[in-house]
Amino acid sequence: MAVVVPFESPQATIDRLVALVASDMERVNSTILSRTGSEVTMIPEVANHLISSGGKRLRPMLTLAMAQISRYQGDGHIKLAAAVEFMHTATLLHDDVVDESDMRRGKPAARKVWGNEASVLVGDFLLGQAFRMMVEVGNLRALEILSNAAAVIAEGEVMQLAAAKNTATTEDEYLAVIRGKTAELFAAACEVGPVLADRPKADLAACRSFGMNLGIAFQLVDDALDYGGKAAKLGKNTGDDFREGKITLPVVLSFRRGNAEERSFWTRALEQGDASDSELEQAIALMNKHRALEDTVKRAQHYGAMARDALALYPSSPMKTALEETVDFCIARAH
Amino acid sequence: MAVVVPFESPQATIDRLVALVASDMERVNSTILSRTGSEVTMIPEVANHLISSGGKRLRPMLTLAMAQISRYQGDGHIKLAAAVEFMHTATLLHDDVVDESDMRRGKPAARKVWGNEASVLVGDFLLGQAFRMMVEVGNLRALEILSNAAAVIAEGEVMQLAAAKNTATTEDEYLAVIRGKTAELFAAACEVGPVLADRPKADLAACRSFGMNLGIAFQLVDDALDYGGKAAKLGKNTGDDFREGKITLPVVLSFRRGNAEERSFWTRALEQGDASDSELEQAIALMNKHRALEDTVKRAQHYGAMARDALALYPSSPMKTALEETVDFCIARAH
Repeated sequence: MAVVVPFESPQATIDRLVALVASDMERVNSTILSRTGSEVTMIPEVANHLISSGGKRLRPMLTLAMAQISRYQGDGHIKLAAAVEFMHTATLLHDDVVDESDMRRGKPAARKVWGNEASVLVGDFLLGQAFRMMVEVGNLRALEILSNAAAVIAEGEVMQLAAAKNTATTEDEYLAVIRGKTAELFAAACEVGPVLADRPKADLAACRSFGMNLGIAFQLVDDALDYGGKAAKLGKNTGDDFREGKITLPVVLSFRRGNAEERSFWTRALEQGDASDSELEQAIALMNKHRALEDTVKRAQHYGAMARDALALYPSSPMKTALEETVDFCIARAH
Repeated sequence: MAVVVPFESPQATIDRLVALVASDMERVNSTILSRTGSEVTMIPEVANHLISSGGKRLRPMLTLAMAQISRYQGDGHIKLAAAVEFMHTATLLHDDVVDESDMRRGKPAARKVWGNEASVLVGDFLLGQAFRMMVEVGNLRALEILSNAAAVIAEGEVMQLAAAKNTATTEDEYLAVIRGKTAELFAAACEVGPVLADRPKADLAACRSFGMNLGIAFQLVDDALDYGGKAAKLGKNTGDDFREGKITLPVVLSFRRGNAEERSFWTRALEQGDASDSELEQAIALMNKHRALEDTVKRAQHYGAMARDALALYPSSPMKTALEETVDFCIARAH
């Protein structure tokens, strides 16, 4: 069942990015720790179960990176980066309830340990804390961008819910979903950097475009990975999307390229709910037949290239290189 | 099983308040309608199922009333009032998932019609839209108050979850829960009125105190009503709290005032999960024996009196009278 997918560079890492934002990130981490604190002990328990579970903290790193490349001198980026991570964590907690997930990042999902109730409510708490931090920073334009993202993310998730099990979903509809549910937060996380530094519109548009396209590429690779056999590393089980009837690009492409018999296989397998292992095997065979995983990663490379080009207006710098490598890293995960 | 509880005035209505804010409320209602709009049709469907289900819209009316009594001249109060209602609606959608409720305001709960997933995600969408509207108003102090409320509400809900089925809950702990989950939004809804009008601190404190105490009284009466037999009117089934093992003041008082045998009844009935009708009957008999419902309403009257007194610094006006009547109305519901 192994699937070989092309990638840009096998050495791609985010080490340079991690190093450049390390001192800021330390401050973000202590902010995260102090802002999950509550006398209600269940809150830090649930929040830290997920927050300390070894996520890469890519989104807050992007906020810090964009503040740095914009030569921002204040310290509002620390709280905004923490707020971005809280928004992301809240989304994960709510997603687990929506998807009825058992695992997240290789650990039992919070909802399995503390129940759906705690996941919903601690997610709400983190969202509230995120807004509190943003308000403390006091930049109305940044507030506008991030509150807008909160609504758009939820809209994307509902769109995905409405499209669930619908094999008639087009590639455009699928793209609209992932722009909302994933890429919008990447875009907002990036855009607030130059906003804080009061940079001109062109900079805002560039950073936003970098984040948006990187976010799309990131999600496309995630969707390929769900069928790709690198599950252990991600803490996600191969075929989760398939069993949940989630329509992602590998399915959209396989369905469109398939014959009538294949299409009725997809419709049956995705609509019935709990697909079997042999159905999953058949699904992956069909994806290989139609090069659906390879082409999903190719699409990701296309958006990755757009993300790189968005940075063209910035002169060469270690941070620019680090951001370019981040694009490569996100795509190389597909390997 | 009928329970007679004292009340302040049988004629108490909120008609005067409704009349005084009617023209503003019309604008709030159209804002609510336009801001639940989305190309993702499931969003307005789910949102309007609840929003159009005949809630009194007490919280946004309080924002409008406090803006009016503060002689505010702008129109930021319209969006803030709509945001307050969205925050409330989001809470209800998430509460239904947490409580596994079947009914809400006499209609099937959204989660029964569209599923838990849609309730969680549309709640998130409404919260995002609420923040968007607040940001559009652009008053940082109001943003601080309302974002703080969002975190405190979730904290109160988690506190309630942690206290669930714990008959050792004290009256103080119970009060901390309802301050968070209910009264904080009333307080914030009231405080943003004078904030918009740039009134002095004493006004802010007065309006906040009015809202906080009214909110506590409101929740106490709600908790008495859950055992009080006026369920049909509320669209809530009598004994819901009991069956869910929710520890409210009538239980706290009955438990503390009961003998060892009674206490073991409460512990058994509330911890086992699905209490029977005869257990509910016994619970109400014990509440009557210990005057727990009467005293819960007496406590509500105490907080109601504090709410009225908080308004003392305002000269007589139709709006001041309307707000005093609102206190009476909230308590008279217990009848």
